[in-house]
Amino acid sequence: MLDTKRSTIDKVPTETTAVPTGIAALLAGYREGGLQVRTTVEALLERIAARGEDGVWISVASASTLRARAAELDARGAAGLPLFGVPVAVKDNIDVAGLPTTAACPAFARVPDRDAGAVRRLRDAGALVVGKTNLDQFATGLTGQRSPYGGCESVFGGDLISGGSSSGSAVAVAAGLVPVALGTDTAGSGRVPAALNGIVGLKPTRGLIGTSGVVPACRSLDCVSVFTTDLGDAASVLAVLAGPDPDDPWSRTGVPLPPVAAPRLALPADLGPADGLDQAMGARFDEVASVAAGRAAGVVHTPVDALREAGDLLYDGPWVAERLAALTGFLADHRDDVLPVTRAVIERGSGYDAVATFRARHRLQELRAWCRGLFVRADVLLLPTVPTTFTRAEIAADPVGRNAVLGRYTQFTNLLDLAAVAVPAGFTADGRPCGVTLVGPAFSETRLLAAAAALVPVEVP
Amino acid sequence: MLDTKRSTIDKVPTETTAVPTGIAALLAGYREGGLQVRTTVEALLERIAARGEDGVWISVASASTLRARAAELDARGAAGLPLFGVPVAVKDNIDVAGLPTTAACPAFARVPDRDAGAVRRLRDAGALVVGKTNLDQFATGLTGQRSPYGGCESVFGGDLISGGSSSGSAVAVAAGLVPVALGTDTAGSGRVPAALNGIVGLKPTRGLIGTSGVVPACRSLDCVSVFTTDLGDAASVLAVLAGPDPDDPWSRTGVPLPPVAAPRLALPADLGPADGLDQAMGARFDEVASVAAGRAAGVVHTPVDALREAGDLLYDGPWVAERLAALTGFLADHRDDVLPVTRAVIERGSGYDAVATFRARHRLQELRAWCRGLFVRADVLLLPTVPTTFTRAEIAADPVGRNAVLGRYTQFTNLLDLAAVAVPAGFTADGRPCGVTLVGPAFSETRLLAAAAALVPVEVP
Repeated sequence: MLDTKRSTIDKVPTETTAVPTGIAALLAGYREGGLQVRTTVEALLERIAARGEDGVWISVASASTLRARAAELDARGAAGLPLFGVPVAVKDNIDVAGLPTTAACPAFARVPDRDAGAVRRLRDAGALVVGKTNLDQFATGLTGQRSPYGGCESVFGGDLISGGSSSGSAVAVAAGLVPVALGTDTAGSGRVPAALNGIVGLKPTRGLIGTSGVVPACRSLDCVSVFTTDLGDAASVLAVLAGPDPDDPWSRTGVPLPPVAAPRLALPADLGPADGLDQAMGARFDEVASVAAGRAAGVVHTPVDALREAGDLLYDGPWVAERLAALTGFLADHRDDVLPVTRAVIERGSGYDAVATFRARHRLQELRAWCRGLFVRADVLLLPTVPTTFTRAEIAADPVGRNAVLGRYTQFTNLLDLAAVAVPAGFTADGRPCGVTLVGPAFSETRLLAAAAALVPVEVP
Repeated sequence: MLDTKRSTIDKVPTETTAVPTGIAALLAGYREGGLQVRTTVEALLERIAARGEDGVWISVASASTLRARAAELDARGAAGLPLFGVPVAVKDNIDVAGLPTTAACPAFARVPDRDAGAVRRLRDAGALVVGKTNLDQFATGLTGQRSPYGGCESVFGGDLISGGSSSGSAVAVAAGLVPVALGTDTAGSGRVPAALNGIVGLKPTRGLIGTSGVVPACRSLDCVSVFTTDLGDAASVLAVLAGPDPDDPWSRTGVPLPPVAAPRLALPADLGPADGLDQAMGARFDEVASVAAGRAAGVVHTPVDALREAGDLLYDGPWVAERLAALTGFLADHRDDVLPVTRAVIERGSGYDAVATFRARHRLQELRAWCRGLFVRADVLLLPTVPTTFTRAEIAADPVGRNAVLGRYTQFTNLLDLAAVAVPAGFTADGRPCGVTLVGPAFSETRLLAAAAALVPVEVP
């Protein structure tokens, strides 16, 4: 089906300069290779231009702005700046001062005069904010196709969807345009597109990265997420982003769970076609799980119906009303400015009452307790990131049903107060990208990143 | 108005034996004074009989059961049992194996075959479970008058209400029947009756004491609370009760905040008649606050409108639907078995939708953030426990409006994830009991108990 020969190397157009596309390599270039930020900016501009109209960007900082920032950084030097001269893309539901925030809804656009908390941290660390990326409107969707700015295709081509909602951010990283991009992740928006583009998608604990300046989807669940090409880069960016955000009431701190030398691995005992898991994806996941199990200190096989039940609360339960709560005012004035599919999904939120909401919250607490028990017996849980892949034509034919399938293994995570990192895991036998996700308790990010490096095979067998 | 000469000493009928009524004194008696548990049981039975029909108990363990337990304890000895031979009363919405749980609704009664988690911990620590105490039906109310088992009068007499909902538990301790009683506290049920009976009422952090086996009021907010006559006894009981409850999904652990040698004190800047604060109560609070300020390391004066706004969400906002969620099934089958006032309050829960619920949750998070800021600047906040007192006749004349007044300074606490301890603080100039409450962040119990001892004057000036 798709061209499995395509690798990360191919993604960087060869006509651009030799500026590296990972954070670690870029920083080494600045430190030891005589690279200057101004050179990085020129390479970046060339790469963006070479991609052409790919649906990745909603807005890009002007060349003069980027060049001025490069000159400022080159003059200052890298001392004390952990992301010195690192270009970053920002999902267009996160404020960047001076660039419009659209949430992929032109009528919603406004130009903020200050950065979101997360963007400010990146900038203070020396990053170069390149532009705002495309998304499923109001971050509602997992396909990358629900946008008036165009649907994104995966970097693997073949009409494969990019996944969403952080579609542009994932493709920007996977295509080698930027080494890091911010997404958001409420139901899987920072992991599904990582899987479909063969990159790393880190969905931290709720509240660990501040969400001030982020357009709310489900305010109590929304997370800022991080896309990179490798795990080390994700750790570097998390170190900059994690911490209190005085402007976010949902900001919280916790004691990070340390990495474990040989993690105890939980594996799902009951995945299957009922989840939408296709045969080739299931087979590939089994191969990856088998390698991981061999490298783990022990394996626990567990049913995951508690995760499915929690996940169903997000769109087929009261939490869809949280999306409506964020948009009621806007919908009243701009009903026709919202995509019909988005509106249809969000307006389902009017069908729940407060009693049902509290009942669901009570049940969720029981499911959270189940998770606590699981993570006493195991350090990390390994799951496929998506049960299958879809082409853009397939999504167009069934935009809601197939969207739901894409979230099967991601949408429970924030409701259950878990952290997760999605990592690439090769390809299915029929040539589609396979991603797996490591899931752990709140504040387990460092443990998850280390476990991913230790357990998940990088080579395709 | 009331007889201010009445003191704790008077509350123990003199015709009973010399068995002490505080935990520390009781344990010293067992350890050094030759006291036996069987003697304590006989004194207890005499005291309960002497009080007569006072509305305190819904059920009491049989004399033979209590004597058998005493014999068992006397034979075993006190080693390793921190509450050896300590009689405890249990609010009748908390399961005690073999005694009916009524929640003050006879039609709701059932006899559990196992103890609630908290009761099990007390029993395992050597306590003697005496019986089940009266309450406002389904723990909905702060007056102690909403019960088919009779309304309780305060130990200070004069038709003064006991306060509720943990009415019987508070009176049982204040009258010297038992040294410790369990209550529950969602809106103030563990603090209001402490204030109206001149005892200590500890409302711990949500989840610190397990709530397995407790009839839910607002499941996400309910706390088991502790009544004692002094602060040291409260600390002893908390040490036994705090900890994981495997049968309670809301159980949680946290790092206790240590006591501070000289606490920084926050005082409310904007209390007044709008809260229902009467002049004499306000004047007495000012006296107590002035002494506390003189003993504190520093004073922060703060408006408390954020607390009022949070508190209003409980009964005049979506959380009342959480009560309805717990009782919908029972109400459907037993509508006429529920007190009209209780039913009227709870059924208001049907008037909120999910969108309003999420909006309120979002606003609450902002108010929680405000509290976090306050407790960066101060260690404890001092408030009156109740803004005024009412007689039983006054409550009968306006059962809902005056109930709301009683909760003004307590009902925000669980919504804001705070801990609190209510302590007696003498009497108003017109002879009514005054209580004050120290409020702190989650897991600040030890700090609050120490601060209460350090700051609140025991002597009436």
